[in-house]
Amino acid sequence: MGQQRTLALDAMGGDHGPEVIVPGAAISLERHPGLSFILVGDEARIAPVLAAHPALAARSRIVHTTQVVAMNEKPSQALRRGKGSSMWLALDAVRTGEAAAAVSAGNTGALMAMAKLILRPMKGIERPAIAALWPTINAECIVLDVGANIGATSRQLTDFTLMGAAMARALFHVERPTASLLNVGVEEVKGAEEVKEAHALLKAVELPLDYRGFIEGNEIGQGKVDVVVVEGFAGNIALKTAEGTARQIGQYVKDAMMRTWLSRAGAFLARGGFRVLKEKIDPRRINGGTFLGLNGIAVKSHGGTDALGFASAVDLGYEMSVSGLIERLAADLETFHHRLDTVSEAPRQEGTAPAPGS
Amino acid sequence: MGQQRTLALDAMGGDHGPEVIVPGAAISLERHPGLSFILVGDEARIAPVLAAHPALAARSRIVHTTQVVAMNEKPSQALRRGKGSSMWLALDAVRTGEAAAAVSAGNTGALMAMAKLILRPMKGIERPAIAALWPTINAECIVLDVGANIGATSRQLTDFTLMGAAMARALFHVERPTASLLNVGVEEVKGAEEVKEAHALLKAVELPLDYRGFIEGNEIGQGKVDVVVVEGFAGNIALKTAEGTARQIGQYVKDAMMRTWLSRAGAFLARGGFRVLKEKIDPRRINGGTFLGLNGIAVKSHGGTDALGFASAVDLGYEMSVSGLIERLAADLETFHHRLDTVSEAPRQEGTAPAPGS
Repeated sequence: MGQQRTLALDAMGGDHGPEVIVPGAAISLERHPGLSFILVGDEARIAPVLAAHPALAARSRIVHTTQVVAMNEKPSQALRRGKGSSMWLALDAVRTGEAAAAVSAGNTGALMAMAKLILRPMKGIERPAIAALWPTINAECIVLDVGANIGATSRQLTDFTLMGAAMARALFHVERPTASLLNVGVEEVKGAEEVKEAHALLKAVELPLDYRGFIEGNEIGQGKVDVVVVEGFAGNIALKTAEGTARQIGQYVKDAMMRTWLSRAGAFLARGGFRVLKEKIDPRRINGGTFLGLNGIAVKSHGGTDALGFASAVDLGYEMSVSGLIERLAADLETFHHRLDTVSEAPRQEGTAPAPGS
Repeated sequence: MGQQRTLALDAMGGDHGPEVIVPGAAISLERHPGLSFILVGDEARIAPVLAAHPALAARSRIVHTTQVVAMNEKPSQALRRGKGSSMWLALDAVRTGEAAAAVSAGNTGALMAMAKLILRPMKGIERPAIAALWPTINAECIVLDVGANIGATSRQLTDFTLMGAAMARALFHVERPTASLLNVGVEEVKGAEEVKEAHALLKAVELPLDYRGFIEGNEIGQGKVDVVVVEGFAGNIALKTAEGTARQIGQYVKDAMMRTWLSRAGAFLARGGFRVLKEKIDPRRINGGTFLGLNGIAVKSHGGTDALGFASAVDLGYEMSVSGLIERLAADLETFHHRLDTVSEAPRQEGTAPAPGS
C-alpha cells in the first residue's frame, strides 16, 4: 500500500489557515507515507509552521501567494478577483497534472465556482455535485448532492447516481455499489416528478450499479445502500440536520449523566464506553465533501475544523486520487449516457407529438 | 384548566386500530378530563376494548362504520371509495361542528386528501401544510411543511410562516413567535429563488411574528426560533433524517455501554440518567403532525405508534382546539394577505412592464 501522490493544499483556507492545514497534512502523511504536498499560500505564514514538522517539510514545496479568497466572499466576486489566490492555484495544480487532488477548507461557494471553471465538468455532465460521506450503523455511505446546486432534473439525478457509484467503487471497493433515490414517503404526492422519472430511468437501464429504489430520510443512517441521491437543497438540509441532531443527542447524553452523583459515578466507570462513543460521533473523523463530475478531484473540508479534521479531508483526497475514479467515471458516462438517452427518448417517440411550444 | 372539547377519533386508523386508539384516548382523558370522544369505526371491534376503560366509555360515543381506508390505499382511491369510512366520518364530525378536532393514525396521503376535501382550505390559502413538533435543546419548535406538498412558491412559504406562527401562539403561548426560513448555507447558489423572495416579503411586511431570517438544518434542534418554514420535500426529508439520526445515536450509546463489564456496570449505576435520556428521546412523547390551513383541526398520528404515542397526538388535537387557533389564523390571513399583496406587487409596478405572456 501507499502509492505516491502529490496533493495541492489551499494552506490559507478555513478559519485558521496554515496553523491547521500544515499539522493536518502532517497527520495524513503519517498514515499515507506516499503523499507529498504543494502548500499554496503565504510563505511567511506557512514556513514557520512547516519548520515544526520536518517529515512533512521534506515532502512539501510551498507555492507562494499572498492572495486569499475570504470566507464571506461571494462566488462571483471570488471568480473575478481570485485568480492567483491560494484556492485558485491549488485547483490549477490539479488541472496541470502537478497535483492529483486539491483540498481546501475555504469558502464552499467560491471553491465550487473555481473548481468548475478550472477543472471543467466532465463530458456529458451538466452539473457537478458535492458528495458527502455519511456515517451509518455499519460503516459509511455517500450522499449527493449536498449543496452544489438547488433542484435537479431526472437526468441530473441519474448522473449523480453514476457519479456516486464511481466514488463508492473507489472508496468502498465494491464493484456494483447499491444506490437509492431519497424521496418522501407519501405516495402520489404531486411534484417530485423528476425523482419519479429518475427512478424509472434507473430501473430501465442496465448500469454498473445495483439500483434499489427509493429510501426515506430515516433510512440513510441505516446503511441500506452505498449511495443516496437527492437534489442539493434537500441534501444539504438533510446533512446539516443530521449533524445538528447528533450534536443535540450528544448534549442530552451529557446532561443525563450529570444529573445525580450516581449517574456521574456510573458515567465515570463507563468512561471507556463513552470514549468509544465520542470517537464514533466525532465529526472530525469523517470530514470532507467531494466535488464530483469535474475533470479532477477537489475536496472541501469544513472551514472550522482542526488538524485532525483536516487530515480526514486530506485522506479522502488521497483515497480518491489513488482509485482511478475519474477515468472510470468518464468511461461509465460514455457507455451509459448513450443507454440513458435511448430510454429517455423512447416515450416521446412512442407517445403523441408534444404540443407546439411545450 | 380543562376545557370541554369533543374530539373525533378514527378508531380504525394505524397499524393496530382500536387496540391502540382506545387505550390512547383513555390516557389522554386522564390528562384532560374535559375531553369527550366520538370513536368512529367498527363497533364490534371498538366496544370490547372500550369496556375495559369505563371512564373513557362514559365520555365516548361510537359512530359505527365497517368501512376503512387501507394503509396502502392511494389518496385518489381513498377519495373515490372512502366516503363513509372511519377516517371520512371523523373529519366530517369536525366539519359539522360535532367535534373540535379529528385525530387519525391512518394513511397520511388519504387523510390529507380527505381533510382538504371535507374541511376545505381557509380563505386565501392555496395549500395546506403539515406541521410537526420538533424537539429542541430547550423545548420544542414547529417545522412545516413536512410533506403535504412538494415545492412551494414564495407566497406559500409566507403563508406557512403565518400558519406556523398561529400554531406556536396556540401551543407555546407567545404572542409574537419567532420564525425562520430553512435554507442552505451556500450564498448565491442558484435556484432557491422562492426562498429568497419569501425572505424579502417577510422582512418587508409587518406581521404578527418576529421574523429572524434564514437558518440551516443544524440549527433547527438548537431552539433558535419557534417556527421553521420549508417546502414539503426538504421538510419531510429533514424530519425523517432527524428521527433516523436520533435512533442511530441511541444505538451507538447502547453499543458503547455494552462493550466491557466496566462500562456495563457504569451504565447500571447511571441507569437513572439513562431513563431520563430515554424519555427525552422517546418518539412517543411528541407524536402528531397537524394539517394547517384548513377550516378545522386534523391531527395525524404515526401509524405504528402505541397507546402512549397516540395519546400525545390526542393531546395535540386538544391543545390546538382549545386555543382558538383557526379563528385567530383566519383573522391574521385577512389582515396580512392584504399587506403581502401590496408588497409583492410593488416591484412589478416599479419595474419595467413584464414581457407579454410572462
